[in-house]
Amino acid sequence: MALPRAPEVLVLESIPLVQARVFEVVRERIQLPSGLTQDLVLIDHPGAVVVLAEDERGRVAVVRQYRHPIGRWLTELPAGRVERGEDRLEAARRELDEEAGLRAARWESLGCFYPAPGFCSEQIEIFWARELSPTGAARRPLDDDEELSAHWLDWPQAQIELASDAKSAIALSRWRKALGETFQPDSAR
Amino acid sequence: MALPRAPEVLVLESIPLVQARVFEVVRERIQLPSGLTQDLVLIDHPGAVVVLAEDERGRVAVVRQYRHPIGRWLTELPAGRVERGEDRLEAARRELDEEAGLRAARWESLGCFYPAPGFCSEQIEIFWARELSPTGAARRPLDDDEELSAHWLDWPQAQIELASDAKSAIALSRWRKALGETFQPDSAR
Repeated sequence: MALPRAPEVLVLESIPLVQARVFEVVRERIQLPSGLTQDLVLIDHPGAVVVLAEDERGRVAVVRQYRHPIGRWLTELPAGRVERGEDRLEAARRELDEEAGLRAARWESLGCFYPAPGFCSEQIEIFWARELSPTGAARRPLDDDEELSAHWLDWPQAQIELASDAKSAIALSRWRKALGETFQPDSAR
Repeated sequence: MALPRAPEVLVLESIPLVQARVFEVVRERIQLPSGLTQDLVLIDHPGAVVVLAEDERGRVAVVRQYRHPIGRWLTELPAGRVERGEDRLEAARRELDEEAGLRAARWESLGCFYPAPGFCSEQIEIFWARELSPTGAARRPLDDDEELSAHWLDWPQAQIELASDAKSAIALSRWRKALGETFQPDSAR
């Protein structure tokens, strides 16, 4: 993959440690403009997308699945990593179809964020999807080892059930902000 | 470290791959109750804290530092990982002192979240710190390789400058929700 680099920071050493399916683990030694050196092990991640798919009743599509790193079943918005060379909007369309069986006629970006910038390069872009329809029989299969169930939540319930998952909580909050700006034309933006 | 485990999920194999300073990289093969097996590489992380330190003028303390994994200088709330055996509130006090040179007389938890539950066990607890005073000369040194600057942001500015960092954005949003509940006693909670 290609780690984002700041031109003013010297990379003195870069050693690949692990090549996993989703990410790479790399040890790097760097020098900041001040002369300070840092040794760190970091996760080189291709980036991901999360989809806030809103139906005509204002409900959002969510998926529930087992997340082994935290030992829990978790409710989240549909999401997934960007494949090599894939456009982010394309990745968002693919994940919404694969995970929730939905397509959307209207797409809007709600911006990006870093889930764990202290040790991971991952950047996640949030997409707001509207004018939904089921992909039905055309629904593509999940990845071989994925097992999840999709359902709908209204706003009060989504606020509660999605609070533990960073990407979902941030997407919800940007969505409400976008809605507020739409419905309050006199707001300061 | 100790990965959180769900009793109904079988861990068929667990192989440590990398022992870094902050986390461990582990390859695991598991079996879900349905019989489905998953192979995954995951980050075993001890957990972290983030501190929303609010002064008497409603401003929040932030720090700015270079984050090598994303190749950018980033503005964030004071935060850091929980050391082995350390209480989370203790970790929050320590980070607020080390990173912002502040102590607080009033502490409140705003709950927890998972920044990257798809591949990392990290759970972050959010603390709201008030009644601040500078630790001044008593300020403990940063970690050897840390270099950061602390300053204050008012709410509109914080909303903009902290938006890219997941833990800071979520902490801000829970703080505003907590303030809303305090100042609107007739709200539905």
